[in-house]
Amino acid sequence: MAKNNVIGKTEQRWDAIAKVKGQAKFTADFPINHKLHAKILRSTIAHGYVTAYDITEAEQMPGVVKIFLPEDLPQNKFGTAGHPWSMVPAKRDIEDRTLLTRHVRVYGDDIACVVAKTELEAIRALEKIKVTYEKYPVYLTPKAAMADNARRVHEERDNVIADTSVGYGDVAKELKAADYVIKEHFHTPMQQHVHMENQVAVAWQSEDQRWTCISSTQIPYICRRIIGQAVGVPWSQIRVQKPFIGGGFGNKQEVIIEPLVVALSMACGGRPVEMNLTREESIAYTRTRHAIDYDLAVGVNKDGSITAIDCNVYSNQGGYASHGHAIGGKGGTFINALYKTESLRYAAKTIYTNVATAGAMRGYGIPQVMFALESIMDDAAEKIGMDPIDFRIQNRRPEGFLNTLSHVQQFNFKIDKCLQKGREAFHWDEKLQDSLKYKTGSKRRGVGVAGFSYGSGTYPFGLETAGARLTLMPDASFKLMLGATEIGQGADTAFSQMAADTIGVGYDKIIRDAMSDTDIDPFDTGSYASRQTYITGFAVQEAAEKMKQKILKRASEMYDIRPEYMDIVDGNIVYSHNDQKIADLADFAMSSFYDMAHGRAIVAESSVNIHNNSYASGCTLAQVEVDIETGQIELLSVMNVHDSGKIINPILAEGQVDGGMAMGIAYGLSEGVRYNEAGKPLNNNLMDYKIPTTMDLPDLDHAFVESEDPLGPYGNKSLGENPLCSPAAAIRNAVKNATGVAINSNPLASQHVFEQLKQAHVI
Amino acid sequence: MAKNNVIGKTEQRWDAIAKVKGQAKFTADFPINHKLHAKILRSTIAHGYVTAYDITEAEQMPGVVKIFLPEDLPQNKFGTAGHPWSMVPAKRDIEDRTLLTRHVRVYGDDIACVVAKTELEAIRALEKIKVTYEKYPVYLTPKAAMADNARRVHEERDNVIADTSVGYGDVAKELKAADYVIKEHFHTPMQQHVHMENQVAVAWQSEDQRWTCISSTQIPYICRRIIGQAVGVPWSQIRVQKPFIGGGFGNKQEVIIEPLVVALSMACGGRPVEMNLTREESIAYTRTRHAIDYDLAVGVNKDGSITAIDCNVYSNQGGYASHGHAIGGKGGTFINALYKTESLRYAAKTIYTNVATAGAMRGYGIPQVMFALESIMDDAAEKIGMDPIDFRIQNRRPEGFLNTLSHVQQFNFKIDKCLQKGREAFHWDEKLQDSLKYKTGSKRRGVGVAGFSYGSGTYPFGLETAGARLTLMPDASFKLMLGATEIGQGADTAFSQMAADTIGVGYDKIIRDAMSDTDIDPFDTGSYASRQTYITGFAVQEAAEKMKQKILKRASEMYDIRPEYMDIVDGNIVYSHNDQKIADLADFAMSSFYDMAHGRAIVAESSVNIHNNSYASGCTLAQVEVDIETGQIELLSVMNVHDSGKIINPILAEGQVDGGMAMGIAYGLSEGVRYNEAGKPLNNNLMDYKIPTTMDLPDLDHAFVESEDPLGPYGNKSLGENPLCSPAAAIRNAVKNATGVAINSNPLASQHVFEQLKQAHVI
Repeated sequence: MAKNNVIGKTEQRWDAIAKVKGQAKFTADFPINHKLHAKILRSTIAHGYVTAYDITEAEQMPGVVKIFLPEDLPQNKFGTAGHPWSMVPAKRDIEDRTLLTRHVRVYGDDIACVVAKTELEAIRALEKIKVTYEKYPVYLTPKAAMADNARRVHEERDNVIADTSVGYGDVAKELKAADYVIKEHFHTPMQQHVHMENQVAVAWQSEDQRWTCISSTQIPYICRRIIGQAVGVPWSQIRVQKPFIGGGFGNKQEVIIEPLVVALSMACGGRPVEMNLTREESIAYTRTRHAIDYDLAVGVNKDGSITAIDCNVYSNQGGYASHGHAIGGKGGTFINALYKTESLRYAAKTIYTNVATAGAMRGYGIPQVMFALESIMDDAAEKIGMDPIDFRIQNRRPEGFLNTLSHVQQFNFKIDKCLQKGREAFHWDEKLQDSLKYKTGSKRRGVGVAGFSYGSGTYPFGLETAGARLTLMPDASFKLMLGATEIGQGADTAFSQMAADTIGVGYDKIIRDAMSDTDIDPFDTGSYASRQTYITGFAVQEAAEKMKQKILKRASEMYDIRPEYMDIVDGNIVYSHNDQKIADLADFAMSSFYDMAHGRAIVAESSVNIHNNSYASGCTLAQVEVDIETGQIELLSVMNVHDSGKIINPILAEGQVDGGMAMGIAYGLSEGVRYNEAGKPLNNNLMDYKIPTTMDLPDLDHAFVESEDPLGPYGNKSLGENPLCSPAAAIRNAVKNATGVAINSNPLASQHVFEQLKQAHVI
Repeated sequence: MAKNNVIGKTEQRWDAIAKVKGQAKFTADFPINHKLHAKILRSTIAHGYVTAYDITEAEQMPGVVKIFLPEDLPQNKFGTAGHPWSMVPAKRDIEDRTLLTRHVRVYGDDIACVVAKTELEAIRALEKIKVTYEKYPVYLTPKAAMADNARRVHEERDNVIADTSVGYGDVAKELKAADYVIKEHFHTPMQQHVHMENQVAVAWQSEDQRWTCISSTQIPYICRRIIGQAVGVPWSQIRVQKPFIGGGFGNKQEVIIEPLVVALSMACGGRPVEMNLTREESIAYTRTRHAIDYDLAVGVNKDGSITAIDCNVYSNQGGYASHGHAIGGKGGTFINALYKTESLRYAAKTIYTNVATAGAMRGYGIPQVMFALESIMDDAAEKIGMDPIDFRIQNRRPEGFLNTLSHVQQFNFKIDKCLQKGREAFHWDEKLQDSLKYKTGSKRRGVGVAGFSYGSGTYPFGLETAGARLTLMPDASFKLMLGATEIGQGADTAFSQMAADTIGVGYDKIIRDAMSDTDIDPFDTGSYASRQTYITGFAVQEAAEKMKQKILKRASEMYDIRPEYMDIVDGNIVYSHNDQKIADLADFAMSSFYDMAHGRAIVAESSVNIHNNSYASGCTLAQVEVDIETGQIELLSVMNVHDSGKIINPILAEGQVDGGMAMGIAYGLSEGVRYNEAGKPLNNNLMDYKIPTTMDLPDLDHAFVESEDPLGPYGNKSLGENPLCSPAAAIRNAVKNATGVAINSNPLASQHVFEQLKQAHVI
């Protein structure tokens, strides 16, 4: 590995040219003959029951093939969360959905479906379906849904779908013993993923009488399983293919439309049926980031030590269980990862309500808990008069800490280095000084910092398997097959670098495919939990190492040299002791195929089950200018610093950080789905739901504290979700530094900030 | 293997339902956006040079994108024969083609090409291209092309492209010593494949900037290589995909249009370009069976022993080398395989002419040599007054004979059993007696018999590699990936049976794919030489055995039982000593994937290089009625008997035999491409080129002398091409038996028979 330098180099994305030239095919781009189009009839109430449908007029509309009510489709219960199947029933995701439902739990629930010859005809028919409802009370918040007399959202279980508590030490005693106790309430919003490509899937009966579904999914294999469960066929009867994807951010770690599309094709004689959600549907009726409430108390001594962290969590699940408690319940581990404390209690509830179902979203609960934690830690530092960076460094978990809540040992954990590097690179002290000049007048400036930590994959909570297959081609190129899913993040480019580096050839010698296919690619649970370069990286490494050894073994027979004397460097087979060339790998490859006596294809495949996890960390530093007359915040500068081990491809890493920071900044400043009191979403369009444009963002600065992670396959650890974990808290802390007002619910949109400043009598 | 009974059972073709329902997609069925259409401008002379093109008017025609002359495309020399690449330059196929040519060698040669938006627009533009030729003399026969002053068809080499002689003993001396010497001349026609689906291919630049070509090919991997050579890019830059195929019969073991289609896409900015040959083009301008002339002499003694076989062969290659001498040169081995003789000389020449290029066609030279051999052997038997079956049995090669011409040892060689079984099942003796009643009058009856032998694959002459990959699915189905090519013959069904049998599950548990893909499927040289169930069968067996062992190894850890105590029978893991069930394989499969500690995918792959060959044999028995007033032959009954080892799937084997017999009967009775003296084909349409309909054929009877071949992977050996090797000679012999006239050139079409009878003074 040391001899090849493909890892750590900025190689061009393998798919860059196709995307620029418009050759890249996304799900809706596949020309398919005789395709039908499906549209969902969505409830116009948030909680209730459909007592009657009148489809008489709709059935007569032009182009209508069939109108489906819930009773027309299989009614197997299934869950939509993209988790690997668990052999332990109690650990499985809650199965609370069916294909269509009369029982409405969210506004826009799937109550019927039209299949027509064109999408427009389907939409026109939808408008003619008449629905009669019985209405139930609508619960928008955990508090409302937890009230004693609240109606169950799902008859089978309590609205509190999970209630857990973890921790150590005597929190009550330690809080009492502390010099100061800071208690605060935090609230985070329902952010939506707003991936460029909406949910889209098309399914048909394939030539072998099974069912093929092309879908914009992060998790083809899990999608296969959930379709199988929902429609009630053995899983092998389903084939899922994933072409290029226009983003997922966790929303496509959820199997939302695929089972319905397959069921509709089944009900239409196997004809292809496509469903293509609109932006309005995608924002309001798919998944959101959980809105979570935190009641936090921190005990802190004058010397800066932390005695206790007490955290009560109320996670708003919305109408269906989806990823459920996996998100709200996860925060304790990562609080514990960051801070030394004598005692910790992390008590979390996840509660059904009647807002949009919350699911996986980039960060998976950590942006929420870091907003709360890093806000209160900043307040604690302020309370004892310590610099917030010094405070965090003083209380950091040391290298090698065994996180007792996850049993993960935090090797190579460099939050302190991130904070130090950030202080210097961001010019923290200068900007802090600069801000002092703007503490009066209408424009107030301040700086803020926030840290985070994040896992690489789900171990030890989830199954971590991945696979890779490499095939030597006659000109010494290698086809790399993976079940891991490129979703725009550049994973395939990183994997290609890994394979090239380990085999000993150039990056241009690795051939990848846009299409993932559950029938042919090595099994991999998919793209989520920032797991891919880490978990799948092991599979690529193992397959590439096997490939190399197979080549050297064959070369040993061919050139009559012991395999251990040989290596592959820059596409040549060489003596390992001095790199003297023995053969061109391309010549070897030709012989390996076409030698009459010995010719046979060389293929190497690996499937790994990974039992480790490397915790990454990082921080955001921000300087803001608050217009206290309008509540408008200008982000003057912002920097993320990341401890993500070895950086496989710098420009791709920078792209991840830029994108994540933009999302994290918007989480802090502008984004959130809003509802009226009847549970109707109010801003499910891109005029009213505010994602930032480049004009809304300052330059996004970043730095890496690069190191070789001792457990990561190429010294790497997670980076995909990390960048958005800390910006919101850093901005909140900067606003506090600027105005003296701590605003504990984000986004810090002008109206909200203005009201908070007014309430604090700043204006 | 003994416990499972999937081998030898009539399982339904896996693709049957899709084909009946119209779901099966062939090359032209793939919807592709922005597709362009290419048509070839074909020469209207058979030999000459294009001195000028005038494309002015054609370029102005509606829809024309571009008109290509030879100089507009890469002019790398390449060969079109579908052979594996040879590491030995001298053994490579002759590379005598370029993409388009000014030098015309056959009528219909590719002299220019139009790419237009529609096929019709391309055709209309073709008609406006004006061509000026310099004309050369046209050679229709080997004799003409071999004349002293004949012009070279290809400047670089003599018209005799190969001239070989093999054999043993002193033929001249042994002929002299024989009681009788029979000397005859035989001529065979240019049969054409007439596959249901014409040649069609479409190519475009794929998302990774490489080139994808979907083609109706028997040899995706070889096609990849030849495209790479012709267009001048590394082979890995080409990806060939093969969907369902409507037959190939060897014509698609030739890479005729794919390089051009890829080059055209390259020249059109990567846009998809499709070429779809017409029936007229496919019959006249692709490939044919070699027309071969034989001068044969056989020495025979009164006791029935054969002293000498002397065979001079003149194989008419047409305008380009294609498979060349591999076909005409092959016969000696299979003469030697059938008959004991003191001496043998097989001298063969392959000669360029100006008729359509001859290439691979089902039987690959053997129908020709068997027509000659089995005719003269019949005449020899007649000469000494022996029953022709007895004569063949007496002179058969014994079991285990080492064929000195191929170095293949003929284990399990059962030509004698075939002849014996045929005699009984066909009621030979009764029909012979019956025929005696019809030796006068206008309707004469007679019976005839002919034998053949045929290899299983190309060893030791060609590389024999194949691969298979099996993936366990969570419900204990198995995906089977192969580079072997299903071309309608049912190979994939046979392979699925093999995999199921070896693993220990039902046939319905094996999942195959219609699409072969050089990027992902295990390397395999393709479908030809009746090699697939034999050569690829080894790969399937090895992969399935590996899969089984991997399952048992994991099961051993899971159930704490030594792997060697366990077996898999009927989809259960059982104790091997008593078949007691240990676990359902489906439950095992779920654990194998989802066990937190050990879960990982189980995949097994194999690539084999096979160094053996099993010679199959068989015979045809026929009874004819000849209307001597018209020369019309009615085939009253016909039977093939085959020694092909174990029959994997009886109904598929019967299908192969039926199809091969129909083709072999037509070879004897009606088929042949005809030319005028300028070399223009006269009957390249289905009105004038006579393939038989079911109405033209009697019931096709068949029998198998089934046995377990000791070398075949499942006891099987070749069957695909075998059935058409002997019908033509059997019919010729029956006609001789009926009329007393030996007609030594086929087809025995009425006009030809009539003339022969007249010449023999029968009428």
